[in-house]
Amino acid sequence: MEKYQIGVVVGSIRRDSFNQMMSGALANLAPAEFSFKQLKIDDLPLYNQDDDGSPSDSVVRLKKEILSAHGLLFLTPEYNRSIPGVLKNALDHASRPYGQNAWAKKPAGVVGVSIGPSGTAMAQQHLRNILAYLDVATLGQPEVFLQAKEGLFDESGNIGASAKDFLQEWMNRYVAWVKMHAA
Amino acid sequence: MEKYQIGVVVGSIRRDSFNQMMSGALANLAPAEFSFKQLKIDDLPLYNQDDDGSPSDSVVRLKKEILSAHGLLFLTPEYNRSIPGVLKNALDHASRPYGQNAWAKKPAGVVGVSIGPSGTAMAQQHLRNILAYLDVATLGQPEVFLQAKEGLFDESGNIGASAKDFLQEWMNRYVAWVKMHAA
Amino acid sequence: MEKYQIGVVVGSIRRDSFNQMMSGALANLAPAEFSFKQLKIDDLPLYNQDDDGSPSDSVVRLKKEILSAHGLLFLTPEYNRSIPGVLKNALDHASRPYGQNAWAKKPAGVVGVSIGPSGTAMAQQHLRNILAYLDVATLGQPEVFLQAKEGLFDESGNIGASAKDFLQEWMNRYVAWVKMHAA
Amino acid sequence: MEKYQIGVVVGSIRRDSFNQMMSGALANLAPAEFSFKQLKIDDLPLYNQDDDGSPSDSVVRLKKEILSAHGLLFLTPEYNRSIPGVLKNALDHASRPYGQNAWAKKPAGVVGVSIGPSGTAMAQQHLRNILAYLDVATLGQPEVFLQAKEGLFDESGNIGASAKDFLQEWMNRYVAWVKMHAA
Repeated sequence: MEKYQIGVVVGSIRRDSFNQMMSGALANLAPAEFSFKQLKIDDLPLYNQDDDGSPSDSVVRLKKEILSAHGLLFLTPEYNRSIPGVLKNALDHASRPYGQNAWAKKPAGVVGVSIGPSGTAMAQQHLRNILAYLDVATLGQPEVFLQAKEGLFDESGNIGASAKDFLQEWMNRYVAWVKMHAA
Repeated sequence: MEKYQIGVVVGSIRRDSFNQMMSGALANLAPAEFSFKQLKIDDLPLYNQDDDGSPSDSVVRLKKEILSAHGLLFLTPEYNRSIPGVLKNALDHASRPYGQNAWAKKPAGVVGVSIGPSGTAMAQQHLRNILAYLDVATLGQPEVFLQAKEGLFDESGNIGASAKDFLQEWMNRYVAWVKMHAA
Repeated sequence: MEKYQIGVVVGSIRRDSFNQMMSGALANLAPAEFSFKQLKIDDLPLYNQDDDGSPSDSVVRLKKEILSAHGLLFLTPEYNRSIPGVLKNALDHASRPYGQNAWAKKPAGVVGVSIGPSGTAMAQQHLRNILAYLDVATLGQPEVFLQAKEGLFDESGNIGASAKDFLQEWMNRYVAWVKMHAA
Repeated sequence: MEKYQIGVVVGSIRRDSFNQMMSGALANLAPAEFSFKQLKIDDLPLYNQDDDGSPSDSVVRLKKEILSAHGLLFLTPEYNRSIPGVLKNALDHASRPYGQNAWAKKPAGVVGVSIGPSGTAMAQQHLRNILAYLDVATLGQPEVFLQAKEGLFDESGNIGASAKDFLQEWMNRYVAWVKMHAA
């Protein structure tokens, strides 16, 4: 049944992260043949090229999980008009050593929630630059810039009424995007 | 024979543009089923939203040519750490009016030649941001950042020996990219 | 009395541009020793390096006006997640020919109004990259990302109540920024 | 004698980092009234907003050192077309909690060494976006995009002959920039 496994990367590691909540709510909009697994990034060391020859267990695990996925889903807040350092650190780890970029050729979607309306938009501009280099093809439209406000989620933690149709449309395009690239 | 028509957009309008020369040399690396047609952008007016209802003939022509293409090829120099205004003006015209973006869903490649080694690289970061919004899926790797120097072209105007294998590899991936999206 | 002359560049050339309106409303918040003059950019040709030796009258005029200013004020909407082509075209013209960049060393402020809340934010990221290269020092905080909505302006075309204190604070910092760099 | 203390942030934490070497070599070009102290960033935890109320000793130390500096010097390699995660993580830590951004109002210079010629250029575009938001005024020209190649350093670890005059000119402008902002 679950033919497409998606590796989910959430750019915030705080407990009640809106992006964390969104990752679960989005998964509920996907068809049954898609499964979502969050990639753990909060136990990675700071990337140091001197360690390329002896990566930590957490780095080995991350790369293995990426390689086994059919597609990727990034959810990013904005820290200081770019992506969080913790997200960039994970991107750096799994791209190394040179020639062994685990992210390569995985189709991806990019989504974000931020407190202000324009935060995640600016973070996603940087993220798309990075992902293009990593040979990750990202779905262009619709862009998903969500503001963390009343009603974004309903009481069950699902997408609230105001954004539901829009995000269902996004999911439909994302599913087609992954299938096209995985074919 | 020519099943895939590619609309080529060259970001410089000077006569002896390196990017103009590169557009012709690249076309020679493509298989026979691909044809390349340059989209004229040097006779467009400066974009003014007030004219959305009565576009000039040059704008109508540009949009029509984009819509009939199966894919796009952008060649951009760098002006002031971004894409030339003349290229952005063309992107703006064909994206309008709202809801009638002619670029949408065309797969694209991004290539560039600049005098310094890092110029087109920075311009392409901005261009990829713009194209993602326009729903143009751009090939990620290999990136093509070419420096305008001795030997880039041979005496016949074809790609010189130093870059030939690399650009043939790029073309092969570009061809596959267009075919996948056009399928 | 008017010791500091500011060259104003508005990135949209449509008649009822919100950024055009904002440029006038902002000028009203400045002290008497500051005067603002809009730099005309809608009659520039598309930049072509072949014309560097024989610039049009409109280009000569633009460069002369920039050189006589003590500071700059940019107001930019967002077109396709970047600055308008018409604005980039003006930036390109006045930066050329090589070694004769008229913008250099002018302190500047960057402001923008867009329909969506995140548009001008993304455009300003690109604009700041360009201005850094042009050796234009831009005021960092507060950032001014304004949404074109009810109440942005009052009936007289001045800043409405909701944004007035914020923009007066911005103007105070901008004035100090220009004075420091012009000293 | 040492009137201006500069906090130096090196974006790579590997032992033989070219940017680390460059930080020492650059300091030798400065006048006697400038002193340079590297800010340690390799012992910071991954930033987690949940810890804002109880920052680690390393975070407290970093913020204290920034606050006591008159200016900043950033040296950044490029990882995946942006700044390293480890550098972004440091930027994030010292910018928080909300309203207590330690970087604010410090004048800064941005320099970088990368293996390829265009790497640090692209990283610096993102870094300047981030620093503008953090209210750090960065020197625009000359840009410093250095390629790690034979002769960049001499046998004593000082700047080699090919780049010495250029970097001395940069240092002279940087010194004037810091003095103007610190006045």
